[in-house]
Formats: sequence, structure tokens, C-alpha cells
Amino acid sequence: MADVTAVSPLAPDRFPDLPVISGVRFATTAAGVKYQGRTDVMLAELAPGTAIAGTFTRSSTRAAPVLDCEAKIGTVSDAGAAILVNSGNANAFTGKAGVDAVAAITAKVASVCDIPQSRVFTSSTGVIGEPLPHERITGILADLRANLDAGRIADAAKAIMTTDTFAKGAAATVKIGGETVSIAGIAKGSGMIAPDMATMLVYIFTDAVIEQEQLQSMVSAHTNATFNCITVDSDTSTSDTLIMAATGASGVDASDSTKFLGALHDVMLELAHLVVKDGEGATKFVEVAVTGAQSDRDAYVHAMSIANSPLIKTAIAGEDPNWGRVVMAIGKSGAAADRDRLSIRFGDVEVAKDGWRSAAYSEADAAAHMKGQDIVIGVDLGLGGGKATVWTCDLTHGYISINADYRS
Amino acid sequence: MADVTAVSPLAPDRFPDLPVISGVRFATTAAGVKYQGRTDVMLAELAPGTAIAGTFTRSSTRAAPVLDCEAKIGTVSDAGAAILVNSGNANAFTGKAGVDAVAAITAKVASVCDIPQSRVFTSSTGVIGEPLPHERITGILADLRANLDAGRIADAAKAIMTTDTFAKGAAATVKIGGETVSIAGIAKGSGMIAPDMATMLVYIFTDAVIEQEQLQSMVSAHTNATFNCITVDSDTSTSDTLIMAATGASGVDASDSTKFLGALHDVMLELAHLVVKDGEGATKFVEVAVTGAQSDRDAYVHAMSIANSPLIKTAIAGEDPNWGRVVMAIGKSGAAADRDRLSIRFGDVEVAKDGWRSAAYSEADAAAHMKGQDIVIGVDLGLGGGKATVWTCDLTHGYISINADYRS
Repeated sequence: MADVTAVSPLAPDRFPDLPVISGVRFATTAAGVKYQGRTDVMLAELAPGTAIAGTFTRSSTRAAPVLDCEAKIGTVSDAGAAILVNSGNANAFTGKAGVDAVAAITAKVASVCDIPQSRVFTSSTGVIGEPLPHERITGILADLRANLDAGRIADAAKAIMTTDTFAKGAAATVKIGGETVSIAGIAKGSGMIAPDMATMLVYIFTDAVIEQEQLQSMVSAHTNATFNCITVDSDTSTSDTLIMAATGASGVDASDSTKFLGALHDVMLELAHLVVKDGEGATKFVEVAVTGAQSDRDAYVHAMSIANSPLIKTAIAGEDPNWGRVVMAIGKSGAAADRDRLSIRFGDVEVAKDGWRSAAYSEADAAAHMKGQDIVIGVDLGLGGGKATVWTCDLTHGYISINADYRS
Repeated sequence: MADVTAVSPLAPDRFPDLPVISGVRFATTAAGVKYQGRTDVMLAELAPGTAIAGTFTRSSTRAAPVLDCEAKIGTVSDAGAAILVNSGNANAFTGKAGVDAVAAITAKVASVCDIPQSRVFTSSTGVIGEPLPHERITGILADLRANLDAGRIADAAKAIMTTDTFAKGAAATVKIGGETVSIAGIAKGSGMIAPDMATMLVYIFTDAVIEQEQLQSMVSAHTNATFNCITVDSDTSTSDTLIMAATGASGVDASDSTKFLGALHDVMLELAHLVVKDGEGATKFVEVAVTGAQSDRDAYVHAMSIANSPLIKTAIAGEDPNWGRVVMAIGKSGAAADRDRLSIRFGDVEVAKDGWRSAAYSEADAAAHMKGQDIVIGVDLGLGGGKATVWTCDLTHGYISINADYRS
């Protein structure tokens, strides 16, 4: 039986040192929403005028807090703002009671932070279909506000965890015209992870000056190439939320900075990779790189077909260079492929070329690559210039243990 | 660790008594294609004038024997015919060598059975990407022909198995104008099972008189409602093949018989269910019945999203009535759904209604249903008259053990 409480073997050695972002303060507490003996509520207070952008799950059964955030994102305001997150209960599929819970929480946050209710963004993550005991949250908000501190982002990363085995953070600093701006982000997520976001909550903060519309376009563009390119189990959550806040406290305008755009991409990709590395039961981090497709979209469809295939994911868990299953996943994807132009490699080992096993193929070399912790599956379709790279993990006894042997 | 050699707990008590179909004779042998100590080649010889229809995987990387069968199906001939199947090697992604192997085998079968090569249909199932040692098959064909016997369909069902834990057969007899016609079918398949067929081989025989075109339309129609409505792991094989042969030996014309059509449907559905019941690691047989969708297609998309969800399949393995995951799977499917009109039941237990947990919901009752071997998940979308039913199994440690712990 897999040990389902152990930290993922793919976890970084430690939580990174994240820069303090001027204009953001954090507080966390143990409100006992569901979990006992750990923090489960996080408040982030944002300075007046902070620009806020977001991307959300496209599930048709999305949760009440997601619908509330979506309705609020996109407006510009000089007022302060706040993000309130609870773990343990997703407040999803909870009907009118769910809507009422969001209203009660956002009203109370607005009141204690002295900001408009339209500037309060909430997320809930955890079990679906249970009423959220919102009074446990509203009851501790005044205390939470009193404990806000700019240095507590690591605590915030911990409070939003559910089945995560480690807290996730990433950061970057960028020089723009001799001035420094910083980006710091946190994320949670370890199962129900697939494109269109995932059971994944991501909060990214910067002290740069960026207008709301520009911030939204940066976040949307990067989401497609980062969080929408990861999958753990092909399942998509009702609660996925990414919120980015630009406080402007540095006074440095980053709206047109390609350096900033690049740094933001790197922070988002790092957070996306950390989510995969905490995939339930994961023991291998897998990159699937598809080239030579008829279009980027076709390449993405093939890559996701490979990354979501249970037979490929179990073969990786078994350290088996079973490239026949890669052929199968390409064949079933629905995107264009010509069997006789297909090339496949595991790491640097070419296993198949032009529709058959490579003449130079060494099973021992391929097997050696599969023994590593970082696996690369490369596919060239030989049809055009389309390409895509996605990331996933293996499918192990640990996934079954986490999701079958224990009630969630 | 799951016992991966045990017979599926969902297996029938015994292989059914199948009627002898006049005009078909079977022989099997242990050719050592890959397996040792078991039969791995099956020959079925068909009487002159037998009508032959088929459906095949839609994988874009389909195997050489599949391409050969597809090219031959649809013609009408007064000659005899033959079906030759080997297990252990799929002859898939084997380039020109694969085509040559099919040519060598079909030529030899034609020669020993004295029929045109265009009337020889072959299937290969097993590992992908290894050259098929076809001389091991051509070398034993004369002996195989000498041992043909009308009563050996059960042996045929055994010889085509790969990771199957039990042989699969189903039959029906129909009275048409006072005369009896019979249908007998065999199937193999236990992993890489998803719509668009699966790692699944199916051979169905009848002594009824049916013209080729009519036979093809019967088979195609029923395939959509049977074999394309099952899934074990969402993976689709490169080799899926269903061939139906009508020998006409009874002299009874069934071309326009709705009774025959119904009986054929039942045989195909029974074989499809048996494939799911031998799903790798399966311990529960699961029916997903969706009603109230905007269209039948939407209902099918929702049903397959539920049936393929790893989180739902692991919850079923854990006997957990985790209906929140059903909400998730509906939300991610891409088909139309309105969260607030959704009803969900497990067996006869209504768990959710109109977008929230039912007032009368009893967790104990739902949990009791999940402890059974036959699980029913019912979903009503409340949007229209579209409906679909699909079948799957749970996702257990056994699946991981079969596919990760052992080299295939």
C-alpha cells in the first residue's frame, strides 16, 4: 500500500524565499471549516487601486464563489480589495445556500476591511456538495484582519492546501528602467487536474503598475501555455481559480514590458509544474513534447491524449519504455497523424522512426531513461510545423489509495 | 498487491453452451507466437457464399491486419472464407514488415483452405511494435486445417485471449416462420477499452441467410449501441475488430426479421458487457444512465465523461457514494448542463435533485448500494429528451498492478 501521507518525492527541497510584495498583506487561521489542527482560511488584503485579473474553470457546474468572482473581475476601482480563501469545503453544487454563503462571507470581509463588497474575491476548495458552514469563517474575520502581515505569504500557501503534500510558491524580480518590480505567486492543487484549469487555486501578486485590461490579457495568454498544459488525471474541477493582483506600489509601469511578461510566464509555469509534481501518487514528472503536427491545436490534442492515457501513465510508473502505447494514444486522439511518418523518443533515445522501431533502438537505453525522475516523451508527426508541450505525472498505486481507499 | 492472475470476480460461473452454427468450423493450436503453453492461433473456416460484415477501430494508427480487413469487407462472393486470429502480437506499428506478414499469412490460409486470398480475414492482438513472427503461423496452418471441427467454438474463444481472465461467449436462437436460426459470438478484451471499439476482437456467426449489405448495416447500427458504449480505461486500441459471418446454412432468410435484429443486439450487448466485466482489475460492473439531455449525443458525452473519470472510478472502487465527482464530470464534459436542474441517483437512491443534495438523501442507503457488485449511476439533466446508457468498471490497484508492475 502506498503511503498517502508522505510528501511527494517530486517536491522541491523547501518552500522558496518569496519577495515581499508591497501593497499586499496576508493572514491565516484555523477556522475548523472541515479540517482540525491546521490553518484553513487565508485573507489577502490589497492596497487601494490594485488591478485584479483572473481566469476560471470552464466547468458548466462551477461553484458559487467562481461565479461570484467571474462577475466581479474586469472592473477598475481605486478602492482596496481582498481575497479570502477557505480549504476543506468547495461550496460547489450547494444551490441557493452556496450563493448565500458567498454573499455572507464577502459582506463580512468588505465590512472588516472597509472596502466595497464588489472588491472581495473568494475561493473555496475541498469536498463538493456539502453546505459551507460560513459562520465559522465570518466569525473569525475580525481577528484575521488584525493579524495581517506583509511577510506571511508562506503561511498563505499552507492554508489553501487540501490533499497537497507540500506548499507551492514561485517568484521573479525584473528590472525595468533601472527599477525593480517583483512577482510572487502561490498555488494549491494535486488531483482533479486537467486543462481548463483544475482543482487548482493560484494567487499571484506584483507591485508593478499594470492596468486591469492589460493585466487580464497577460494572465489569459499565459494560462493557455501553462496551467492549461498540465494534467494529472484528466478530471476538471468545479472551483479552479487564478487571480492576479497588481498593487502598483512600486510605481514602476510594467504594462508594456516584455521582460515582465516573460517573468510572469516563468512564475506561472513554475507553479503549474509544482502542481503536477504534487499530483496524487506521482513519482515521475513527465514532459510530453509534440512537434511536426498540422497545427498547434493538433499538437496539443495529441500531447494531451498521451498525457491522459492511463496505459501510458501506468507504463511510466512501471519504468517501462512501452512506446506502443504512445502509438495507441496518437491513434485515438482524433487529430491528424500518419502512422508511417511518426517518430517517438524517450529522453534522447529514439525508439521509433518513420512508422517503425528505430534500427538503432536500444531497449536498455530507453529503460535507463525511464528509471529517472524526469521523463520526456518526444513525438514528431512529420506533417507540419505545429507544436505543443504539456506536463503530467505517472499513475500509481498511490493515486488509487488516495482516491479509493479513503473517503474524501 | 492485487492478484493479477485471478479470474475477474465479475466473471460468469462458466462459459455458456453455444449452439453449433452450421457452415462454420474451428481449430486452434499453440503456435508459440509469444505465449508458451497455451493456444494462440484460431482458424474459423466459413462455408461457400458466407456473407461477411465488420466494424473496426477508427484509430489513425491502426494495425496492418485491420487495414487489410477493411479493404476486403463489403464484397460479395460465392467462395468460402476464413478468419485467422493470433494472440500475443498485434502486428501494429510494424511498417512494411507488418504488411508483408499479413500478406504471407492470408496467402497461406487461402492456399490450405482453397479459397481466394480476398476472402481471408486476419486479426492480431497483443504487444504493439514487435515484428510478428509470421512463419510460426504459416508453418502450422496445414495441421490447423486438418483439425477443423464445428463444435470447437469454446476453444476458439480461449485462443484469442491476451490478458483476459475468462473466455467470453454469448448466443441466441430465433424462430422465423417456424424455422430456427442461431447466433453464436465470442470476444476478447480487457484493457485499452474505449469507444471506437477497443483492444477487442469479436467474432459472431449465424446460420441465417442475410445479404452482405444488410448484414453490414445491422452490425454497424448495433456496434454504436453496444461496443461503442463501453469503456474500461478510455484508451483505444490499434487493432479492434468485429467480424460477423452469416453462412446461410439454415436456408432461413433473416434479412428483414426484427426478431433476428433484436437477438443480434442482445448477443452483442452481452459480449460487450463481458468485456467490461473482464476490465483489468475490475471489481464492480457500472451502468451509467443519462436522461433529460438536450440530445442523445449530449447524453452520450456526459455518460462517457462520467464513465471515464478516474476520480469516479476510484470512488466506486472505494465504495464511496461520492456524487460530487459526478457533478464534476458533468461539468467538464463540454455538453450542455444546467447545474440547478441536475438530478443524480446511485441505484434507487436519489442523492441530488435540482442542483443540490436531496432533502431525503440517506448516505447510509447510498453507501449500501455502492457495496454491491452492480452499480448504477443515474443522471437526469432536466433539459430535454436525450438519453444514453454506457457501461464501465471501477479503477483499482489491480489495474495499476497489471499495467505498471509487469512488463507487457
